[in-house]
Amino acid sequence: MFRTKTCGELRLSNEGEVVKLAGWVQRVRKMGGMTFVDMRDRYGITQIVFNNEFDAELCDAANHLGREYVIQVEGKVAERSSKNTNIATGEIEIIADKLTVLNRSEVPPFTIEDNTDGGDDLRMQYRYLDLRRSAVRKNLELRHKMGFELRRYLNEKGFLEVETPILIKSTPEGARDFVVPSRMNPGQFYALPQSPQLYKQLLMVAGFDRYFQIAKCFRDEDLRADRQPEFTQIDCEMSFVEQEDVLQMFEGLVKHIFKYVRNVDFDYAFPRMTWADAMKYYGSDKPDIRFGMKFVELKDLTEGRNFVVFDSAEYVGGICAEGCASYTRKQIDELTEFVKRPQIGAKGLVWVKVEPDGSIKSSVGKFYSEEDLKAWAERCNAKPGDMILILAGKTMPTRKALNELRLEMGNRLGLRDKNTFAPLWVIDFPMFEWDEETQRFYAMHHPFTKPKDEDIPMLDSDTGNVRANAYDMVINGVELGGGSLRIYNPELQDKMFELLGFTEEKAQEQFGFLMEAFKYGAPPHAGLAFGFDRFVSMLAGLDSIRDTIAFPKNNSGRDMMNDAPGAIDEAQLEELYIKLDTERIEKSGAKK
Amino acid sequence: MFRTKTCGELRLSNEGEVVKLAGWVQRVRKMGGMTFVDMRDRYGITQIVFNNEFDAELCDAANHLGREYVIQVEGKVAERSSKNTNIATGEIEIIADKLTVLNRSEVPPFTIEDNTDGGDDLRMQYRYLDLRRSAVRKNLELRHKMGFELRRYLNEKGFLEVETPILIKSTPEGARDFVVPSRMNPGQFYALPQSPQLYKQLLMVAGFDRYFQIAKCFRDEDLRADRQPEFTQIDCEMSFVEQEDVLQMFEGLVKHIFKYVRNVDFDYAFPRMTWADAMKYYGSDKPDIRFGMKFVELKDLTEGRNFVVFDSAEYVGGICAEGCASYTRKQIDELTEFVKRPQIGAKGLVWVKVEPDGSIKSSVGKFYSEEDLKAWAERCNAKPGDMILILAGKTMPTRKALNELRLEMGNRLGLRDKNTFAPLWVIDFPMFEWDEETQRFYAMHHPFTKPKDEDIPMLDSDTGNVRANAYDMVINGVELGGGSLRIYNPELQDKMFELLGFTEEKAQEQFGFLMEAFKYGAPPHAGLAFGFDRFVSMLAGLDSIRDTIAFPKNNSGRDMMNDAPGAIDEAQLEELYIKLDTERIEKSGAKK
Repeated sequence: MFRTKTCGELRLSNEGEVVKLAGWVQRVRKMGGMTFVDMRDRYGITQIVFNNEFDAELCDAANHLGREYVIQVEGKVAERSSKNTNIATGEIEIIADKLTVLNRSEVPPFTIEDNTDGGDDLRMQYRYLDLRRSAVRKNLELRHKMGFELRRYLNEKGFLEVETPILIKSTPEGARDFVVPSRMNPGQFYALPQSPQLYKQLLMVAGFDRYFQIAKCFRDEDLRADRQPEFTQIDCEMSFVEQEDVLQMFEGLVKHIFKYVRNVDFDYAFPRMTWADAMKYYGSDKPDIRFGMKFVELKDLTEGRNFVVFDSAEYVGGICAEGCASYTRKQIDELTEFVKRPQIGAKGLVWVKVEPDGSIKSSVGKFYSEEDLKAWAERCNAKPGDMILILAGKTMPTRKALNELRLEMGNRLGLRDKNTFAPLWVIDFPMFEWDEETQRFYAMHHPFTKPKDEDIPMLDSDTGNVRANAYDMVINGVELGGGSLRIYNPELQDKMFELLGFTEEKAQEQFGFLMEAFKYGAPPHAGLAFGFDRFVSMLAGLDSIRDTIAFPKNNSGRDMMNDAPGAIDEAQLEELYIKLDTERIEKSGAKK
Repeated sequence: MFRTKTCGELRLSNEGEVVKLAGWVQRVRKMGGMTFVDMRDRYGITQIVFNNEFDAELCDAANHLGREYVIQVEGKVAERSSKNTNIATGEIEIIADKLTVLNRSEVPPFTIEDNTDGGDDLRMQYRYLDLRRSAVRKNLELRHKMGFELRRYLNEKGFLEVETPILIKSTPEGARDFVVPSRMNPGQFYALPQSPQLYKQLLMVAGFDRYFQIAKCFRDEDLRADRQPEFTQIDCEMSFVEQEDVLQMFEGLVKHIFKYVRNVDFDYAFPRMTWADAMKYYGSDKPDIRFGMKFVELKDLTEGRNFVVFDSAEYVGGICAEGCASYTRKQIDELTEFVKRPQIGAKGLVWVKVEPDGSIKSSVGKFYSEEDLKAWAERCNAKPGDMILILAGKTMPTRKALNELRLEMGNRLGLRDKNTFAPLWVIDFPMFEWDEETQRFYAMHHPFTKPKDEDIPMLDSDTGNVRANAYDMVINGVELGGGSLRIYNPELQDKMFELLGFTEEKAQEQFGFLMEAFKYGAPPHAGLAFGFDRFVSMLAGLDSIRDTIAFPKNNSGRDMMNDAPGAIDEAQLEELYIKLDTERIEKSGAKK
């Protein structure tokens, strides 16, 4: 061992001990005849003292240390005269006897500090230096701890972690898989899994009863700001369970993680909300319930006053912003601009202020009497000092716009604290989603999702209103995971494929081997998957998943550190029985 | 829940309880007016009784159950009249009140029994049924448990599990990577990692101090009987350590696993053997030390008696097979055939028997006096009743042949019990391996391995004899893992590349970004990786790794269950800027 202690563990109680430390030079300061070196490792920072009077040569060596040099120091633990209460080792320092430079360092391209001067691109290019920053490293430490606690909980509950293959079958229709040419099978390709869905269902057929995996998944899609081509999923499946069993099991998992990783104790059952209510009261299938401001429907109270905007609207809904009656014209204009942004798409914003004295003002005051407006305020539970914000239009788009406005008001009013966690089960999702463009139904979750038993008679007659045994775990407006009961009855599965417009051939081609497996005694089963990266980022208080990943890729799927992907040589292409489509590559304007 | 108990947990103490079970029909037997159903789940088998006298309709339903039907049974726990002591639930049975068929099953293509009638191919094609067999499932349960205990140990020791990328840089020279065309970067490819080697070293540069990962790795090579294109590695790396620290840490890991997974307690320090001794005494870098039979060198005792075979040989070595003086001519002929097989390549086998009365017989008796032969026997520690087996020739090939003979004798004498475990560290591997064909040195471990400090002066003058700080963990003649101290000094690394015949450009191209990272303060570090599949197969007592993997591939890299890999369509190829090399595919004779 190059050390007897780490840079994070020495305390006043170690005073007088002779120790050996190894780590990186964070900082060198000369003060009078003394040189102070802050020495850093994963565990902390310790101050080393060199005294020119006692050992001029040693002190001179210390003066020549550069930032990020790797050093080994031997010396005695002493009490500091001026203590640093910001760090755990701040009461002591090491009086150095010996200094060894284990390795030198060029001057790093950015400072290794929590508040670094390095920009994003530079940080990614030198990710190994970026990871030295404790602000980044502690996210990875949290990730490790979460992985460990996840496994501890699931192991205790009898789940088996089973690795499913990464080189899997490519399904011809399933575009946007990453594919891998097979050298041994000329002209054929493996795909990388978008999720272990089929395999986990096969494990249920195999009688594994309770399965989980912290699994790498891959999706070759255009990367939005917070997507990665490879991501990690906490993938779970259980047999012989009803929806209630699944919710209980994974609510337990979430509670366990919060307790052991964040020391947050949820001593209550997580609330549950149907998808229909989530849309009605929050305009979102992932409501942020850290704060209220539920939607209030006002259509009936607004009719017959010749205000065309409301009269012609399918839906009129408002939220009550507490204490916002004092909002200025400018603030209201900002909100109006906000809802009119193309991503949100509202035509305008109506407001009603209940002034502190109880009087009422509104942007639609000329259409409505004070009586009318008071009725609205009453329904919205608006007290003196509050303001009601109202949007109108087609139901679903207006709800979605009102959701954005509600979240914006939540931000403005400081109601979305990162250290407050409000979990919620959203249940009873619709089975199908109608697509206007292709004029057909799609499975909202996936084609193996089991519809509610009581809705099965409506499959043909009222397809769009059939509810699924599907559920999402939502915390603070972020969907952390979701799952469903699966169909295990082959006839029901055939019916589902039919409703989803799969021909028999296409169903066979894509899911044939699963359907074949289901002929041999599939148990009732259900599952759920959490996005691990997202889960970590929530507990770490990050806005992005990127810093929960040790070596992430950028938005073009490139690793900025080693410049992957790259060219491969002709011989390898030949071995793989493929050729580059050089004509199209040139047209694409890609750099060589 | 479809059940209140599993099929494995009921005991006599549960007598009288009303329970609900769910599982698969293992077997249905009619005896008189009774029908007995063996019902199976992951946890065990429980006998269900249906009495025709009490409920004829229910009993009739039971009589119509087929093998592998999924059923749910309610009933009361009763003591069995004829107990089955072979299974944990053998003292009780369930008197059925209610039977629900949850799913039917076609007749499975092979029996779901430990000794199945299914051949290998059929088992792989219906792997989900094969996995129902407890003989297969328990290997996966063991694998889960090992994974969990590995993590528990490493977590306790302060290791952080960090996921490294699967989509990494393809290095043009590094043939036999699997590659993945990048849609977003036309003409470029990712590679799948053969190991996380570079990333784990970068994590050390990043100050992570202790890293591990149970990592999927990929190798596109022609698959020998016991290789898989994707396999799993327990990958570890530590900073600020010497070789001794690494050996202690991972010896502790192996002990922990054996203790908590197999209940085997190693209460001693694992023996260590230099590579030179391993070759000298066992002719192998992975000696099976469950038994002795160490090589004895006899060259000096054999000279000058005009036996040309020995006189002209560089090496004459023997092993003493205890109690084998009674071997018949036929048995000795078999051994001679064995060593003359082309894979082993010996020219012949010389034997010396020490008869029970102390007299000596030998196949070379006409060349050597009894005196001579007694001297051999003495050196070999041969007692009356033993036989010495001797091979001669060039040193290394003869040692390798003698190794095979020793293992064969170990098998014949029953000295290689699967439930006996003999761990061994093999240390001090040579740094370089000379390749006759290309007339150059290769790194025996890898180019980042640190030579022994004391051998560094010999790097140029005696390259072939430079020893590395490299070590292998060997159990029962199987290499479970290995690793090395890494070079952290850039000048030494440059020297190493030079000795290995890398031009500066080539070193830059392949390892440039690691070398770049090493400029910024790389700590002394070292690591080790275990083959997880192999480790599981050893503890499971399997000869192959295949049944430690839930969904393995066959020797052509195919998944027999879903017939991966497969074709992809033209549109997808186009999106990826590649074309099939149809001409060469046709020539290859591959089926479409």
